Amino acid sequence: MRSKTIVLKFGGTSVGSIERIKIVSKIILSHKSKNTKVAVISSAMSGVTNKLIKTTKSISNNFDSAEYDTLLSTGEQAACALIAGNLKSLGHNSRSWLSWQLPILTEGNHSNARISNIKTKDIKNYMNEGGIPIVAGFQGINSNFRITTIGRSGSDASAIMLAKFLNAEECIIYTDVDGVYTTDPRMNKKAKKIKKIFYDEMLEMSSLGSKVMQPTSVQDAKLNKIDILVKSSFVKKNGTLITGSKKSFSDQIITGISSTKDDAKITIVGVKDKPGVAAEIFKPLSDNSINVDMVVQNISLNKKETDITFTIKADDLKKTEKLVKDNKKIQFKKLAFDKNLSKISIIGVGMITTPGITYRMFKSLAQKKINIMVISTSEIKISVLISNKDVKKAVACLHKEFNLD
Amino acid sequence: MRSKTIVLKFGGTSVGSIERIKIVSKIILSHKSKNTKVAVISSAMSGVTNKLIKTTKSISNNFDSAEYDTLLSTGEQAACALIAGNLKSLGHNSRSWLSWQLPILTEGNHSNARISNIKTKDIKNYMNEGGIPIVAGFQGINSNFRITTIGRSGSDASAIMLAKFLNAEECIIYTDVDGVYTTDPRMNKKAKKIKKIFYDEMLEMSSLGSKVMQPTSVQDAKLNKIDILVKSSFVKKNGTLITGSKKSFSDQIITGISSTKDDAKITIVGVKDKPGVAAEIFKPLSDNSINVDMVVQNISLNKKETDITFTIKADDLKKTEKLVKDNKKIQFKKLAFDKNLSKISIIGVGMITTPGITYRMFKSLAQKKINIMVISTSEIKISVLISNKDVKKAVACLHKEFNLD
Repeated sequence: MRSKTIVLKFGGTSVGSIERIKIVSKIILSHKSKNTKVAVISSAMSGVTNKLIKTTKSISNNFDSAEYDTLLSTGEQAACALIAGNLKSLGHNSRSWLSWQLPILTEGNHSNARISNIKTKDIKNYMNEGGIPIVAGFQGINSNFRITTIGRSGSDASAIMLAKFLNAEECIIYTDVDGVYTTDPRMNKKAKKIKKIFYDEMLEMSSLGSKVMQPTSVQDAKLNKIDILVKSSFVKKNGTLITGSKKSFSDQIITGISSTKDDAKITIVGVKDKPGVAAEIFKPLSDNSINVDMVVQNISLNKKETDITFTIKADDLKKTEKLVKDNKKIQFKKLAFDKNLSKISIIGVGMITTPGITYRMFKSLAQKKINIMVISTSEIKISVLISNKDVKKAVACLHKEFNLD
Repeated sequence: MRSKTIVLKFGGTSVGSIERIKIVSKIILSHKSKNTKVAVISSAMSGVTNKLIKTTKSISNNFDSAEYDTLLSTGEQAACALIAGNLKSLGHNSRSWLSWQLPILTEGNHSNARISNIKTKDIKNYMNEGGIPIVAGFQGINSNFRITTIGRSGSDASAIMLAKFLNAEECIIYTDVDGVYTTDPRMNKKAKKIKKIFYDEMLEMSSLGSKVMQPTSVQDAKLNKIDILVKSSFVKKNGTLITGSKKSFSDQIITGISSTKDDAKITIVGVKDKPGVAAEIFKPLSDNSINVDMVVQNISLNKKETDITFTIKADDLKKTEKLVKDNKKIQFKKLAFDKNLSKISIIGVGMITTPGITYRMFKSLAQKKINIMVISTSEIKISVLISNKDVKKAVACLHKEFNLD
């Protein structure tokens, strides 16, 4: 039997205490066998990174980014030393590897670097001799031989890149949730864990998936063609495989249903239609960090005026109203608002090849007398804006309609 | 004016909080000028190292020493990043340097390494351009490219070695005491700060000096001929210069008076005198980590039996008694004990060239009716064992006798 290599990544809550580190050590050992080499990436113990960030803020809100990285990287360094030390005390061959020891090479700015290369020769030799390398996540070094960090949740990226440069057969991300569900289990009791999900679906399921994995990490995995199994280090359950491979996928058309809450809708009625008017509307919102989600522009029949509708978070409504009213670069007749709205999305690569999905979605909602206010579609996602009060009902009927129950 | 280089070292309490780091930054800047280059060595913030050690113990009492070093070194790494970050936020040019970045090369075992070399090219260039390097104390790397630590209080050693390899003109150790005193100020209100003290005197004044500096660091300074100015980062006062240079020393014969408390004395009466008997007595004590201080062997008149007296800490008395009684390799008539004793020492290189010091000490104590139980002398120190109750009186009369008041 050919030997295989797997990369295990543990998040902050997974290594959040000495008790947890002892449990994680058992998980690591459960994967290791005569034919399976294991490399580990660890995050900092939960709470540590936030505490360090708070400390920098007590010095300056513009704390030097190179020193910030040097400071924050101590969190992963400590966690790795503790895991390796624990494995050693159990009689196993293990040691920590810091970014400069491999090295893990990065490019880009401090606090937001990207891993460009990982030299794996040393840990490959070590694994060949039966050792378990514990590699510090979230960090690298740059061409100036200084420590960089790769953004929050960067340990996922570390694991994906380590899997890539090790040519690992598996990459398992251990976290505090046990996978991705067809919809939020708090929203619908019939929610089921998804066994397999495509990268692109995962990217679209931000409201469901972001608790599991940052979109940038999913993108990293997609670009580097690394299959990722997300599972819990707290309960022994199957996880969710995030993959690009079509092998053994079910013929499920829709993979999951996500929902937001507390959205708001603004319609600018009777805007003078001219090239660039949309940009004029959204520039001040962008400048003020207001996140615009769905945007719909109605066809202007007279070709002189148009209605533009967009959604934002309800918290931003007052600020947005003022910015639109104060915007001297646009002319319009009136503003209309609506609060307490939710966006329901159905996601699935199956809809690319299956016609009639939009119709089925609308019909299903109509049968439940749920009013659709805005519609927005992408290749693998259809989103509709509805009233907050209809969310549970909508999720339930769509979950059933697309055979997810 | 030729430019000079100074090394500043800050201990754990000096950098024990963000407020302290801000104060330390001001001290650093107060030293820097057009003609003065400053390099800084920092310890971990107070409490951090002990907390990390405690964490390793919650995993194992035999925690792997390489991982122990990797873990503990995060303390200095964090402190240096915070100091450099603070200086940067104040508009100054500063950055942290970790042991592997210089590098600081060490030899010997993990957790007890010795600095063999420090590559100073990078920080010299940086200082020439006006930068202030903040170098992590207590740590180095070994030939396996792994982090080592150089024993507790190793940051002093880091400062001394950095001063050596930088050919620095000054090395200032900032700590939480403001220097070395002629005797413990709590013992005698007439205690005065010593302006200048020889390395050897400092080594002998362990009870006074150990709060200021570990004997191994003094030894390092002596071996490398680095003058050390010890001063407080909490109060603006002159400190104590620890040096080997005879320049501008006063003609003071005795530099300081130290005292211990809670010593105990054991006399083994009528020991069969034969070669190696002392070794037989002390081996089991050494094996049990009992620290034997003064040892006196009376001349055996009949050349067959001898009395051996030695002092230990009172806490070890019971254990010592048992070990001596259980020791089958020695024969003796009886054991005598005495508790509640103190050792008073007068220290000064002046006594080498000045006769009559012993006599003056004994006479002075006799005039105060203080009984001397054991006497022990070295080239620059005379110690006597007296009753705990006489300590204050003894220190006061000796302080006066040797013109220290």
